[in-house]
Amino acid sequence: MHFLLTNDDGIYATGLSSLKKELSKEAECLIVAPEREQSAVGHAITLSRPLMVRKFRKNGKFFGYAVAGTPADCVKIGIKELTDKPIDLVVSGINLGPNVGIDVIYSGTVSAATEAAILGVSSLAISLDTRSDDADFSFAAKFARKLVLFMLRHSSLLKGTPLNVNIPAVPKDQIKGVAVTRQGSAQMMETFERRVDPRENIYYWLVAESLTNTEGMTDSDTTALKNGMITITPLHYDLTHYDVMADLHETMKELTF
Amino acid sequence: MHFLLTNDDGIYATGLSSLKKELSKEAECLIVAPEREQSAVGHAITLSRPLMVRKFRKNGKFFGYAVAGTPADCVKIGIKELTDKPIDLVVSGINLGPNVGIDVIYSGTVSAATEAAILGVSSLAISLDTRSDDADFSFAAKFARKLVLFMLRHSSLLKGTPLNVNIPAVPKDQIKGVAVTRQGSAQMMETFERRVDPRENIYYWLVAESLTNTEGMTDSDTTALKNGMITITPLHYDLTHYDVMADLHETMKELTF
Repeated sequence: MHFLLTNDDGIYATGLSSLKKELSKEAECLIVAPEREQSAVGHAITLSRPLMVRKFRKNGKFFGYAVAGTPADCVKIGIKELTDKPIDLVVSGINLGPNVGIDVIYSGTVSAATEAAILGVSSLAISLDTRSDDADFSFAAKFARKLVLFMLRHSSLLKGTPLNVNIPAVPKDQIKGVAVTRQGSAQMMETFERRVDPRENIYYWLVAESLTNTEGMTDSDTTALKNGMITITPLHYDLTHYDVMADLHETMKELTF
Repeated sequence: MHFLLTNDDGIYATGLSSLKKELSKEAECLIVAPEREQSAVGHAITLSRPLMVRKFRKNGKFFGYAVAGTPADCVKIGIKELTDKPIDLVVSGINLGPNVGIDVIYSGTVSAATEAAILGVSSLAISLDTRSDDADFSFAAKFARKLVLFMLRHSSLLKGTPLNVNIPAVPKDQIKGVAVTRQGSAQMMETFERRVDPRENIYYWLVAESLTNTEGMTDSDTTALKNGMITITPLHYDLTHYDVMADLHETMKELTF
């Protein structure tokens, strides 16, 4: 078996190493990851400049390819160019920080999994619900291993459907279970902080306060994660709003050109 | 009335000026656009560095704000920081080149409209189906004006639902009509072209060949646009795959941790 691993925290990230360590027990793991952190890049791909790709070594041994691009770039070039063998599964993570609610839209971690699905490869994005520097990824990595085996057993059900997985950052015995969830509507409270640089130019920092979750939906990823559950949200990339589409057919008749 | 206009081709783009010219007949138009082209940035936002914002003049007059960021950044900072007055509608475009099929996922033009919807503002992304340098945006701009009036009349139906609009680049009398469409599944054929720089480093250009549309769905945006229709696709940003979610509830029970 042959997996491609990537992330958006960059090729140096601990979450990626933890993932490689566990998944290497099941498959040959090709690492293709951004050379620098790429958080909140959404589903960006690089068109206007070339992608630099270099072999990245760790402790003197080949670890993977570092790409001067986005997570979606890494998946695209990894599958299409950096190996001759078919990829059975793409795993993106383990992200330092959750990817739930509206934030899923901005997530580089998730976009890598989506890109894999677009290219016809099963995929999984996995994130740990902490931003702590000394986060312990070991449980999340072990769960990822169980989950990929589950996914391979159910590959027909999951074909074209990336899974977005979030793991509570608590000891294993405090985890309440596994929940199949939907993307919640909770979003960050955001403001801009205005500053003036030494040359009198104006600039702004985006300041995000912690997620206010007032949605009260127990099947949302945000709520379930907060309640100590591992969340698994199946995703799609058809952005059509079918309900409104049906309504528009009639209403649109009044529109002339 | 107060509109915010943005794009992903950058504040210098002709498509944006054409839009401003027409929409200024209906509303005060605040322009907040990327200072440089931002195509294929997806729903990226800028977190790791500050956003530089400067006043941009055209023919000696204030034209709008140029932001060193993405289209989604422009919408966020425009609505939250650069005006005190509420924004009634966000219009993104007119993009040079179509945004249909799988490409919608990568589109900066569309992500600006989605960001507006996330912030509770009605929105519209509009693209012209040509990449010609001397494209004529006048018909598309006039249609945008009609469409925003339609949207304001039906604001309850369209609340939270960005519209993704594509205009054929043909004379008006050759346009076949207006179609309510869904995002098609057609995607670019992509390859990477490998090169070696003068210092022996390896780099790759992403090469996209024209869209191969074999989907045969007449209600898809790609097909309808090719058939000379103006396409209007209502979008959402709930990425949950509800059908698979229902199936997973049962299957997932075998997964332990």
